[in-house]
Amino acid sequence: MDQTATPHAIPSACDFTVFGGTGDLALRKLLPALYLRDLEGQLPADTRIVGVSRAELDDDGYRAEVRAALTTHVAPEDLTDPAVDRLLARLHHLTLDAHEPDEWHRLHALLKDRPDHETAARVFYLAVAPSLFGAICDNLEAIGAVNDAARVVLEKPIGHDVASARAVNDAVGRVFAESQIFRIDHYLGKESVQNLLVTRFANTFLEPMWNSHWVDHVQITVAEELGVGERGGYYDHAGALRDMVQNHLLQLLCLVAMEPPSHIGRETVRDEKLKVLQALKPMTAEGVDHDTVRGRYTAGLVDGVAVPSYADDLGPEGAPGSRTETFVALRTEVQNWRWAGVPFYLRTGKRMDRRASEIVVVFKPPPHAMFPHSEGTTEPNRLHIHIQPDEGMRLHLTAKEPGPGGIRLRPVSLDLSYATTFEQRSPDAYERLLMDVIKGNPTLFMRRDEVEAAWTWVQPILTRWATSPDRPKRYPAGTSGPTAAATLLERDGRSWQESDQ
Amino acid sequence: MDQTATPHAIPSACDFTVFGGTGDLALRKLLPALYLRDLEGQLPADTRIVGVSRAELDDDGYRAEVRAALTTHVAPEDLTDPAVDRLLARLHHLTLDAHEPDEWHRLHALLKDRPDHETAARVFYLAVAPSLFGAICDNLEAIGAVNDAARVVLEKPIGHDVASARAVNDAVGRVFAESQIFRIDHYLGKESVQNLLVTRFANTFLEPMWNSHWVDHVQITVAEELGVGERGGYYDHAGALRDMVQNHLLQLLCLVAMEPPSHIGRETVRDEKLKVLQALKPMTAEGVDHDTVRGRYTAGLVDGVAVPSYADDLGPEGAPGSRTETFVALRTEVQNWRWAGVPFYLRTGKRMDRRASEIVVVFKPPPHAMFPHSEGTTEPNRLHIHIQPDEGMRLHLTAKEPGPGGIRLRPVSLDLSYATTFEQRSPDAYERLLMDVIKGNPTLFMRRDEVEAAWTWVQPILTRWATSPDRPKRYPAGTSGPTAAATLLERDGRSWQESDQ
Repeated sequence: MDQTATPHAIPSACDFTVFGGTGDLALRKLLPALYLRDLEGQLPADTRIVGVSRAELDDDGYRAEVRAALTTHVAPEDLTDPAVDRLLARLHHLTLDAHEPDEWHRLHALLKDRPDHETAARVFYLAVAPSLFGAICDNLEAIGAVNDAARVVLEKPIGHDVASARAVNDAVGRVFAESQIFRIDHYLGKESVQNLLVTRFANTFLEPMWNSHWVDHVQITVAEELGVGERGGYYDHAGALRDMVQNHLLQLLCLVAMEPPSHIGRETVRDEKLKVLQALKPMTAEGVDHDTVRGRYTAGLVDGVAVPSYADDLGPEGAPGSRTETFVALRTEVQNWRWAGVPFYLRTGKRMDRRASEIVVVFKPPPHAMFPHSEGTTEPNRLHIHIQPDEGMRLHLTAKEPGPGGIRLRPVSLDLSYATTFEQRSPDAYERLLMDVIKGNPTLFMRRDEVEAAWTWVQPILTRWATSPDRPKRYPAGTSGPTAAATLLERDGRSWQESDQ
Repeated sequence: MDQTATPHAIPSACDFTVFGGTGDLALRKLLPALYLRDLEGQLPADTRIVGVSRAELDDDGYRAEVRAALTTHVAPEDLTDPAVDRLLARLHHLTLDAHEPDEWHRLHALLKDRPDHETAARVFYLAVAPSLFGAICDNLEAIGAVNDAARVVLEKPIGHDVASARAVNDAVGRVFAESQIFRIDHYLGKESVQNLLVTRFANTFLEPMWNSHWVDHVQITVAEELGVGERGGYYDHAGALRDMVQNHLLQLLCLVAMEPPSHIGRETVRDEKLKVLQALKPMTAEGVDHDTVRGRYTAGLVDGVAVPSYADDLGPEGAPGSRTETFVALRTEVQNWRWAGVPFYLRTGKRMDRRASEIVVVFKPPPHAMFPHSEGTTEPNRLHIHIQPDEGMRLHLTAKEPGPGGIRLRPVSLDLSYATTFEQRSPDAYERLLMDVIKGNPTLFMRRDEVEAAWTWVQPILTRWATSPDRPKRYPAGTSGPTAAATLLERDGRSWQESDQ
């Protein structure tokens, strides 16, 4: 079953339970995503959605809260009264505390209150702090709610280092089989990220060049304009390396670097991604000092608006002496036949000069300069894959500028914009991923061995940063990060690509 | 000197003599092109333009004729009175007959009537019937007009078979050195054709795939909507093979297939093109029967307008029993390491369903179908190079259609339109080529050995067609040619690509 390529059908019935049902993620992302899939007629007809929280709410109170959330977080053109009413009618709310298992029989009673309760897809979405994952799973097992149709969805962070990640996986794994565990990374649900697989493997035109013979280096940037905002308490214990690099950026790196699997199947893609993680050049303490840069924003201007420093953003929540980084840049390599010697540069930061997630594959220059007397400028060919804010891709080439006389070379680009090409709304990543959970398709979710391999690679950086006398380099909010991040490439004779969005 | 890459500077002075100065080519193309270059300030400041014809015209009469021609053939936004006056002031007219050499001293006197007559670029453009080439050259030599700065421009056709092409080349070559002879093929002056060299050789992204490993086949189409029009008398003695294939289509094939030269120099590109012509699979009589299709249009509808048959277009000029073809399709191969086994399909015709000149490189499908359960359609990757009516290129790929659920593949394209990218008028091919003549840069002109190699390859087709009992296949005007042209590809499991312009 694991290696099959059978497409995953939408089941006829589903109970979708959200722990943390009144939380920010549920109201801002999960319920709007379920609404939009329901609007498209894709939710199983017989779907119930159960919000679980400690809030003292009955079903109607929860429905009112969700109605307000939909009004705020769904685009007006997608809001229709019948569709909203249909979704609200699916809603239930249960007031439960993870630490008071006696009350949980009420959840079991609700789940069993349907004739097809043994076959209906049974989703448990843990939109709560990871410290509760173990207790919730134990309670679900204790009440007998974990049947063959059950699956559990885990939000990041899965641990904060190798040991704690293993502990979380152990705790959940005691109750659920690995095939039932869906570790979500919403980057993998983005259209342009999935299109990367199609672009690479449903076309002839890239793969012949997708290797160390033709690729000079790869850049992966996830830049945010926002600061830590409300998440300061969590963030100051995590930092950019744990919050972004260990999961999102390494996942993107895997999709860029992976070998073609035999097919796009539930395990085949993850097998190939795992191989990439295992092939990453291990970081030594010296390697960390040489090949990583951590930064922290100071006060500055973002889009012309004055914003405070990270320390001021944290306020009283900030630990004195915190060395938490809000920016990471690093250089690594994938040590295998295809990528030998090709640097992969990763960077991510908060309070940057723009919001842009992009993968840039920079190709080597032509082996021979054939137009020595040409005027104009040339740049190496580059493929920009835009993940946000807009999704698309752009191939940067050199062309001849029209006109008689000498040959003048000029950079041009070939564009594929999702918005203009497909003339339809690109669904939010959560819409796809929630449907994959309902259908039981784990291809786009992180497997245990992937998560732990990523932590294993990240661990020496965490260890070194914790013990090094160095502190994060300061960068003013609204800039492209500390100058050391630029130096990281400049010493290799390269530079970060400007966004072309 | 021949192998240098030194850029060619615009000389300070020039005498540009056009034989056939009152003819259609001169008035419709050459003088407008000279005007537009003059408008851009690119003509040598001290340029005279001498129209030579048998017409009884003085300078002023010729100026009036040219003024009318400019008004008709130059876009209104490019017409300014000062620029027109400046060009007209450069004009002279001489009434000469190639067969009356006694009068030619007047041309020599005019050319010598400037202090820098020994160094001024001296261009003789033979926009006359090829039967006059020899006599004109002899006269020029007789009057002593062929100095070191002289160059002669030959319009097609250069002969009508191998022997006559050699005879023309011999006749001109007795008077001019090969380095002084500019055989014009205006296709080589088109922006998109030159950009093909830049696209291939100033970029990394195509060359790794530009070979038999990744290219399935190549299609070159030059389709016209026009019939033979006024040229029936000439055309009925030539036909599409001589008129289009031997020169334009084979030249395009050369640019697609050629190896990278060491640099873009006056001989290096022509050396490589010659190698392609010499590597074309020789046509045997059986090969002609199997791999070529000739057609002739019958009456039909072009753009909804009824048009007569070729025979009716010819009228009384048509030779009884003429078997002249107005359409050719053929299959050939370039027998070298890079292109072994890759078919090159060429076709050209008059009275087709559209006006479109395109090169299409069709890549092989990915070696493995990795999305077996995907819905949607896939097509092989293709690069369309648009030569006319619009210039540009378009890369056809497969992408993922946005949306959750299964992966739906969909054809998309990445576009480079010259008009929208460069936001400037693309100069006419003649503008570039005339400037190249003035500068003495022969890179984009056909060398004697190229012309004769092309005729040598074409010759077995001419011979077989002349002796075969078969006649051209009929096709209604306004269609894509005889059905046998489709069969030529279908028997290989392929089909002609629709235009994507």
